[in-house]
Amino acid sequence: MRLRNKPWAREKISAHPQYIIPNPEEAKGHWHEIFGNNNPVHIEVGTGKGQFVTGMAKQNPDINYIGIEMYESVIVTALDRLIEAGLPNLKLLNVDGAELLNYFEKGEVGRVYLNFSDPWPKSRHAKRRLTYKTFLSLYESLMPEGGEVHFKTDNQGLFEFSLKSFSEYGMLLTFVSLDLHNSSFEGNVMTEYEEKFSAKGQRIYRSEARFQPRP
Amino acid sequence: MRLRNKPWAREKISAHPQYIIPNPEEAKGHWHEIFGNNNPVHIEVGTGKGQFVTGMAKQNPDINYIGIEMYESVIVTALDRLIEAGLPNLKLLNVDGAELLNYFEKGEVGRVYLNFSDPWPKSRHAKRRLTYKTFLSLYESLMPEGGEVHFKTDNQGLFEFSLKSFSEYGMLLTFVSLDLHNSSFEGNVMTEYEEKFSAKGQRIYRSEARFQPRP
Repeated sequence: MRLRNKPWAREKISAHPQYIIPNPEEAKGHWHEIFGNNNPVHIEVGTGKGQFVTGMAKQNPDINYIGIEMYESVIVTALDRLIEAGLPNLKLLNVDGAELLNYFEKGEVGRVYLNFSDPWPKSRHAKRRLTYKTFLSLYESLMPEGGEVHFKTDNQGLFEFSLKSFSEYGMLLTFVSLDLHNSSFEGNVMTEYEEKFSAKGQRIYRSEARFQPRP
Repeated sequence: MRLRNKPWAREKISAHPQYIIPNPEEAKGHWHEIFGNNNPVHIEVGTGKGQFVTGMAKQNPDINYIGIEMYESVIVTALDRLIEAGLPNLKLLNVDGAELLNYFEKGEVGRVYLNFSDPWPKSRHAKRRLTYKTFLSLYESLMPEGGEVHFKTDNQGLFEFSLKSFSEYGMLLTFVSLDLHNSSFEGNVMTEYEEKFSAKGQRIYRSEARFQPRP
């Protein structure tokens, strides 16, 4: 998305430590204490303006959500949503998704959501796609056995790549929709992008893939 | 497809034993003798009117092809094509794809093609889909380790089902196209259906999946 420079963003983020965790390295291994319960923790990598993760947190009060977004100028909009909604089961992290190992212990994350991630269409940028094998390995290292990655995109090339990448990594495909909005799938929470693109008649692709036990 | 009764079909089939193998049980274990060479044998299950398998045999003279079609009234059209083309590397089999074990030894088939197979859209008919696990098991039992299933369809539901089915069976997805005719894939040979449906602007889906070594 287009990034606007928002010089006031950092200050606003600092002013809301109850929503955007200020020293996330210190949260590692302590997420259940932070949320004050033992509910599962689901994370969204690249949470953008936060419409999806806020909607999910409203829909599922017994799951804890963490929206991860590296851009200050974007996460402030998610922060506004969260201030308005005042959800106890949602936190935000202003960090780079590639460095998740710094913020979570093995097994601390129950599920990873990826929504409309940057497609990085050039082959030489394949390693930057959030479904590339190094990222899958990263997610696997945060979750208990059988953890799942739930993925949505409108980008055909990224979806083709990701299905192969999940398979090559040894993951099990448990859900595939090639046209989510014309399917029987229930309870879909839309992202900002999804609303915009699907209104134009663009297909939305969705998959669920599960990490398998290592032999 | 709509089947027309063609009472003369059986007679015509019998008249061309060099193209449509008359006693296919006896061919089991002898396909390399029948073709007179040691080239790989690729089969198409549900070959219909034979446009795909004839085109592939022309394009790849160093591969032996066998088109398998259970309906006499349909395979006669494939026979006409083969008589006209006179290809030494193509044979037809007028048998039920569910009974392939009667006609091939383990390892005798190098690759299986499935094109525009009947989608059997009702859940209670899922077992009849040619990508259901019992069929995958059948194909695996004909091929050496690492054998592949190449699949094309215009049916979204069948493609979604098949990707999951390949994955659940433990196969590796090595190719996925969600819009074959607008992709960079080269050398595509179209079936009769494919020509008709793609001319209407319908998307064609294509995948390649590889059987994996058993632990």
